[in-house]
Amino acid sequence: MRVTVLGAGYMGSAMAKVAAMRGHEVRLWGTWLDDDLLAPAERGEKHPRLKLTLTDLQLMRAPRLAEALEGAELVVQAVNSDGAVPVMTKAAPFLPDVPVLSVTKGFLPSPAGRAGGMDRIDLVVQEAVGRPVRFVHAAGPAKAIEIARRVLTWMTFAGADARFCADALGGDHLQVGVTDDLAGAEICSALKNAYATGIGIWDGFVGRDAHNARAACFTQAIVEMRAIALAAGGRAETVHGAPGVGDLHVTAAGGRNRAFGERIGQGRPAREVAAEMLAAGELTEGYAAIQSAHRFARERGLIAEQIPLLDALQAIVWEGAAVGPTLAALRLSV
Amino acid sequence: MRVTVLGAGYMGSAMAKVAAMRGHEVRLWGTWLDDDLLAPAERGEKHPRLKLTLTDLQLMRAPRLAEALEGAELVVQAVNSDGAVPVMTKAAPFLPDVPVLSVTKGFLPSPAGRAGGMDRIDLVVQEAVGRPVRFVHAAGPAKAIEIARRVLTWMTFAGADARFCADALGGDHLQVGVTDDLAGAEICSALKNAYATGIGIWDGFVGRDAHNARAACFTQAIVEMRAIALAAGGRAETVHGAPGVGDLHVTAAGGRNRAFGERIGQGRPAREVAAEMLAAGELTEGYAAIQSAHRFARERGLIAEQIPLLDALQAIVWEGAAVGPTLAALRLSV
Repeated sequence: MRVTVLGAGYMGSAMAKVAAMRGHEVRLWGTWLDDDLLAPAERGEKHPRLKLTLTDLQLMRAPRLAEALEGAELVVQAVNSDGAVPVMTKAAPFLPDVPVLSVTKGFLPSPAGRAGGMDRIDLVVQEAVGRPVRFVHAAGPAKAIEIARRVLTWMTFAGADARFCADALGGDHLQVGVTDDLAGAEICSALKNAYATGIGIWDGFVGRDAHNARAACFTQAIVEMRAIALAAGGRAETVHGAPGVGDLHVTAAGGRNRAFGERIGQGRPAREVAAEMLAAGELTEGYAAIQSAHRFARERGLIAEQIPLLDALQAIVWEGAAVGPTLAALRLSV
Repeated sequence: MRVTVLGAGYMGSAMAKVAAMRGHEVRLWGTWLDDDLLAPAERGEKHPRLKLTLTDLQLMRAPRLAEALEGAELVVQAVNSDGAVPVMTKAAPFLPDVPVLSVTKGFLPSPAGRAGGMDRIDLVVQEAVGRPVRFVHAAGPAKAIEIARRVLTWMTFAGADARFCADALGGDHLQVGVTDDLAGAEICSALKNAYATGIGIWDGFVGRDAHNARAACFTQAIVEMRAIALAAGGRAETVHGAPGVGDLHVTAAGGRNRAFGERIGQGRPAREVAAEMLAAGELTEGYAAIQSAHRFARERGLIAEQIPLLDALQAIVWEGAAVGPTLAALRLSV
């Protein structure tokens, strides 16, 4: 099968490696921001972020978008949430009528609809492109480097063409389930960065022995993710599976969002921590994710009492509330 | 209220501290194995395991069992699973008709019923005692030291008298939910040590970068815990809340079961690792928990395909199966 991956970053290059492992003919197309990532790979050196060579892939730079998409039987969209609309808009004229597996996670402001309202990426992209896209969302706990290195991984593909994508990419180490609950899967993926930050806050606030609080907030996060998913047309079972419980587990276990949360838990202003981490080259997805998740939830009618943890996070991270009193006032949905 | 705690170990002394924080008159009774724990506390020194003083409690050694229970309005049973039947049998003649909140976790062999069959602790204890006990099970992610130090904790009390117990012990930092799903809550508590060990195996097998596999097995554990709970009269919602998701999270995050799993993942025989850890004073609850959980599940009609992770753990830990091929053959319930 001819597989085209859009976006040559960390996750795009990993998914391209997986497609090549399955015996497909793979083109990895880099956006206009990916030249520095493709250049070493073109010389046979390792991808700077994935730390693996890409000699089994056909590498294409940004101007070759039409060529990259020509004859593709499966497209993987692996640009980040900021890039999803511009890249898919540029790609649209050349996009064959095939499934588009999206690994992009987050919410986006909807250009139409409510002014500035936050919505699912698939809806916003289709609105921007102006026609239906055969969108499949890839959810579940999947760090790129581990997928590429054949560590056991559980992903859930969601959408009408999920089975096609799972058959194309799934295998022994990457075990892929399917669901038609696109809404639930996308919402879980978008919310997990926000909640992972919230769990990380306890490490900074209490110190090392905050296991109970972390687990309480993990449980609370599942309660709130379920409430938000249900309010937006998703299903509870999706939240209880790999897209929700699984992905929150891997995200909360470490990484940048946890580190971000930890520093906020120590009482430092979120804006300052985010700027500091950005300067060090570390993206803190949780920072923006908290605000967009909070807006998405409120726009769908959830009140503060239904999402006390997300509400506390919004207050601490975006509204300058003090960490100690805000966490002390947190009432779990026991 | 007069609260009597049976068992002066780590969790018993912590629950006694919580009861004292709530303004109750608390007696902490130690079993015949607890003298070494009570002796320093009687001298005003710190409890050797909890690392806090117990000067706010009335301490009683084993021979004072009748006195300890006299006039109690709430009893907390905090002995380990091996001690539950002998202690409750000795206590029965003096036990008032009040709720008994049990923090004991595990399955026990049923003396009657199926020969050697594994059953819930509340059922086995009542069978041994020969009369009904107003049993409430305390589930959820609650490390003793953190409860005693006022870290935010979510517990779920399960049973007909759960609300009474929650009102007596819950408060700002210990937030307690209630359910009538005693079966589901006990089963979650009993299973989590087994699955936490399984998640730990990946750290030893893959090394540090096994996040995807850990999260996949966390998700799989929830699937299997739900199947086992449903087969034994419990409810899914209990597995998706603090008793299941929450407690598995805290148990898998670290501690002895994870360390035990990690060494097995490196290819060492489980029996040898368990003996080595026992010699170092570290109880490895996961070792026995895997076998009893596997027996409990099989006795309730679950087949290997419904519990592939627990089946793999049983094979590796108790039947000498090699780690690598067994994990490679694992098929998740995607």
